[in-house]
Amino acid sequence: MLGLMQEWPLLCHKILDYAAAQHGDREIVSRSVEGPIVRTTYSDIHARAKKASQALEADGFGLGDRIATLGWNSARHMEAWYGAMGVGGVYHTLNPRLFPEQIAWIMNHAEDKALFVDLSFLPIVEAIADKVPSLRKIIVLTDADHMPENSKVEMVDYESWIGRQDGDYAWKQFDENTACGMCYTSGTTGDPKGVLYSHRSNVLHALISVQPDALNLGSNEVIMPVVPMFHANAWGIAHSAPMVGAKIVNPGPLMDGASIYELLDTEKVTMTAAVPTVWLMLLSYLEETGKKLPHLNRVVIGGSACPRAMTEAFQNDYDVQVIHAWGMTEMSPLGSLGVMKPVYGDLEGDALLDMQEKQGYAPFGVEMLVTDDENSELPWDGKTFGKLKVRGPGVARAYFGGAGEEQFDEEGWFDTGDVAHINANGYMQITDRSKDVIKSGGEWISTIDLENLAVGHPDIQEAAVIGIVHPKWDERPLLICITKEGKSPAAEDILEFMQGKVAKWWMPNAVAFVEEIPHTATGKIQKTELRKQFADYRFDDG
Amino acid sequence: MLGLMQEWPLLCHKILDYAAAQHGDREIVSRSVEGPIVRTTYSDIHARAKKASQALEADGFGLGDRIATLGWNSARHMEAWYGAMGVGGVYHTLNPRLFPEQIAWIMNHAEDKALFVDLSFLPIVEAIADKVPSLRKIIVLTDADHMPENSKVEMVDYESWIGRQDGDYAWKQFDENTACGMCYTSGTTGDPKGVLYSHRSNVLHALISVQPDALNLGSNEVIMPVVPMFHANAWGIAHSAPMVGAKIVNPGPLMDGASIYELLDTEKVTMTAAVPTVWLMLLSYLEETGKKLPHLNRVVIGGSACPRAMTEAFQNDYDVQVIHAWGMTEMSPLGSLGVMKPVYGDLEGDALLDMQEKQGYAPFGVEMLVTDDENSELPWDGKTFGKLKVRGPGVARAYFGGAGEEQFDEEGWFDTGDVAHINANGYMQITDRSKDVIKSGGEWISTIDLENLAVGHPDIQEAAVIGIVHPKWDERPLLICITKEGKSPAAEDILEFMQGKVAKWWMPNAVAFVEEIPHTATGKIQKTELRKQFADYRFDDG
Repeated sequence: MLGLMQEWPLLCHKILDYAAAQHGDREIVSRSVEGPIVRTTYSDIHARAKKASQALEADGFGLGDRIATLGWNSARHMEAWYGAMGVGGVYHTLNPRLFPEQIAWIMNHAEDKALFVDLSFLPIVEAIADKVPSLRKIIVLTDADHMPENSKVEMVDYESWIGRQDGDYAWKQFDENTACGMCYTSGTTGDPKGVLYSHRSNVLHALISVQPDALNLGSNEVIMPVVPMFHANAWGIAHSAPMVGAKIVNPGPLMDGASIYELLDTEKVTMTAAVPTVWLMLLSYLEETGKKLPHLNRVVIGGSACPRAMTEAFQNDYDVQVIHAWGMTEMSPLGSLGVMKPVYGDLEGDALLDMQEKQGYAPFGVEMLVTDDENSELPWDGKTFGKLKVRGPGVARAYFGGAGEEQFDEEGWFDTGDVAHINANGYMQITDRSKDVIKSGGEWISTIDLENLAVGHPDIQEAAVIGIVHPKWDERPLLICITKEGKSPAAEDILEFMQGKVAKWWMPNAVAFVEEIPHTATGKIQKTELRKQFADYRFDDG
Repeated sequence: MLGLMQEWPLLCHKILDYAAAQHGDREIVSRSVEGPIVRTTYSDIHARAKKASQALEADGFGLGDRIATLGWNSARHMEAWYGAMGVGGVYHTLNPRLFPEQIAWIMNHAEDKALFVDLSFLPIVEAIADKVPSLRKIIVLTDADHMPENSKVEMVDYESWIGRQDGDYAWKQFDENTACGMCYTSGTTGDPKGVLYSHRSNVLHALISVQPDALNLGSNEVIMPVVPMFHANAWGIAHSAPMVGAKIVNPGPLMDGASIYELLDTEKVTMTAAVPTVWLMLLSYLEETGKKLPHLNRVVIGGSACPRAMTEAFQNDYDVQVIHAWGMTEMSPLGSLGVMKPVYGDLEGDALLDMQEKQGYAPFGVEMLVTDDENSELPWDGKTFGKLKVRGPGVARAYFGGAGEEQFDEEGWFDTGDVAHINANGYMQITDRSKDVIKSGGEWISTIDLENLAVGHPDIQEAAVIGIVHPKWDERPLLICITKEGKSPAAEDILEFMQGKVAKWWMPNAVAFVEEIPHTATGKIQKTELRKQFADYRFDDG
């Protein structure tokens, strides 16, 4: 027997309808690529997104068409998303930090038919336009006055393009499982893989993420998503903020400390979200200038682990609460948030910082478990670590085009590729990546834990740990270090420093000093490259 | 093209799975019918609900079966709900305040097959048991020691009944639109009508209701649902609290000021939800005893309009924020909440109280409009009132068995039967019931506004306004009053008092003094009865 409740499909454009109806005057403030700060409202975005839908439809785009975007966070970029979704199309965010060839590869894989692009990224467009045969239309997110004069590529400016429409448009209606968005994971190995969000997954993810123990987002918040829209579905903020009528402040192309600070201050931002790198720049700007953050209540930090010193600085020096979060493009992306449950309500000082080093706990709608190599579930004891697997309405069940099948099992669990432990209260901590963890005599050793420990030595600048094949133990850890300028500690000094701080059998078998450690485009240590460099390395006893 | 996200049906028992996994130690504290305060946890409720499912299945109950409950708020009552939902059954709450014949009528209409009942309501069971032929099993929510000795009705005690199960049970899986709960509206006219909730509608309603601008419910809250589980789906709290791991404090059968205060104080309740009547008792207890409410942060008040003086008392005397809310059984039930948007962030004193007299604004997932008699949408100007219509995933699309079809239109709008206006910022205020509003010369007059005004006169105890047929204006208002003891004001005094405070054409044509005004079981003025009494009344000019 079915219930007798209304069929009300969860469609993303209903979020924008709602924002226009209930929070129509609430502002979206963006630092534009052209320079000035631009102010608009949810009403305006709603009206203009409808024009974008009309214009897309007039140009022959519709249900299922992938509409790429290559832009900074801005109101126009949001309109492009909602315009694409409104015709049943799929916004497809491209990461401008990739090489043009990678972008072209991704666009061809996705078969993008149209492209919205910021002025800043026209060089990329010129480099790729004739390499993507499916691409039929390029719309530059600017007005006629700012259009370049002699481009070899045919393009229209966004303002003229939507200006020809009257906005009298009814969003298309369809099943809530219809695709609406797409984002490729960068992937340290292999080709990028596309995640294909549905209207349902985005709406549910937004509902899940606004709750008090997640982003805690209501109409009184002023949120600055420093995390770019082209990164991990913008952490869902392009959906969650209009869902609750929060004011959005878009930093646009400028992420340096002074520029971020300016907007935090003038727009009275109450919460913000970004990767640690951005916060490093802001914190050092604040330290230099002696400025404070009187309006900011909390920062959500994810993308990579938040250093303890950063949490400490925000909380102790600026009275800003840090929420350490974890997620993945494949998860829409939020997976867990470091909000304190009542059991930890009295923690302070180091005990609180200890708990905040964990990536937090999963909200309703995210199921989590850790398993061993035999797929047996491991206990939630805060130390036994294994493969982290997740399930939920915001989690992918496949990649576009079918790659990466081995990450999905028949019970619906997605293998995140992360290694983690979970404590008795549900707080999860990433200890490694599956492909990096060292398997020594059947037991796992976390390379990240060893690296964090090694950089605590005063002479070490950066550290990386990889597994080296070993005849008896299968693999044993090698610690690779860059020393600080002018320092040249002995290997024994480093190991002695680490001794007693980890289990004895975790201790690296040797230390190698290098001049440089390779990094990916997003700043992560490129361990595949390191493993290649040390492919022939053997320990004295190996 | 469909998205590639996981199929993860929104099923209510996933909420309890989540609560057990992530908030397993969080307490549910209930004042039991047997007397003592009983403490349990989400882990326990989860384990015991699985036993309840097993026991129901062992007794032959399953998909689609209506399982009635007749009980106060308690952990056992929650287990009964989840136990019923877990086998694919439908919890069906019965209101013990109805007459036994009404309860039997409703049970027969719903074809209830089993009944969970509190000890307090055994007299009702004895009165109805042989009048409901579909009823096959009666489970008393108590243990063997408390069972009555010589009942003429066959019953088992809950503890022995679940005690025979091992709890090793996998919840049934099915479509998320499967029915899971049922609640009949009392209905001032006609037979009661059944609303049939689905798993999807309950899960979405819970997600919508926990957000900051709605109930603002997180793991750190301690919520006391004074609103009974048999009233309007318990305002969704039996789903929303476990969804976020909030501690629940159930008042059980005792709603007097002293009993409510005791639990608020000893359990450090931070938020609570009830109808105004309960708060009147609490406020008068506080006034008598001089006690304060140091732990309580906010009260959600709905069910009927919250008097301004009550809001003032909570906020000014006890520093407890009032959230005026509106909803209906047909809406799961939340429709709007009086949380202040930033545009009203600076309001205080009378200006804030003015705004709090409104029933608030609708969260995402509740669409609202007001229409005139010709179904044309009326402006959101804060004064033009019309029929209030709603739409959303938590709104009914029909009543069980097909009654009340005229309330649903083909575009999915449900006519609430309320008359309201909505202001430019989306804040709605109920001004009347459709069937009570007076239509004078094609214009509407709110009887509630006139009543509120009339009771402001120092000699008036209670007032009711009804329309009397009029040859020229179709209908004109008659003010019916009960005077305070020992007072006997003239009709002219009352009218003079009202003069200038409402539009001239709203002024009642006459005043009738009576000894008594009829009320419904839930304390509302029974205007149908009044209209019968005054059926032959005519104005001097009519």
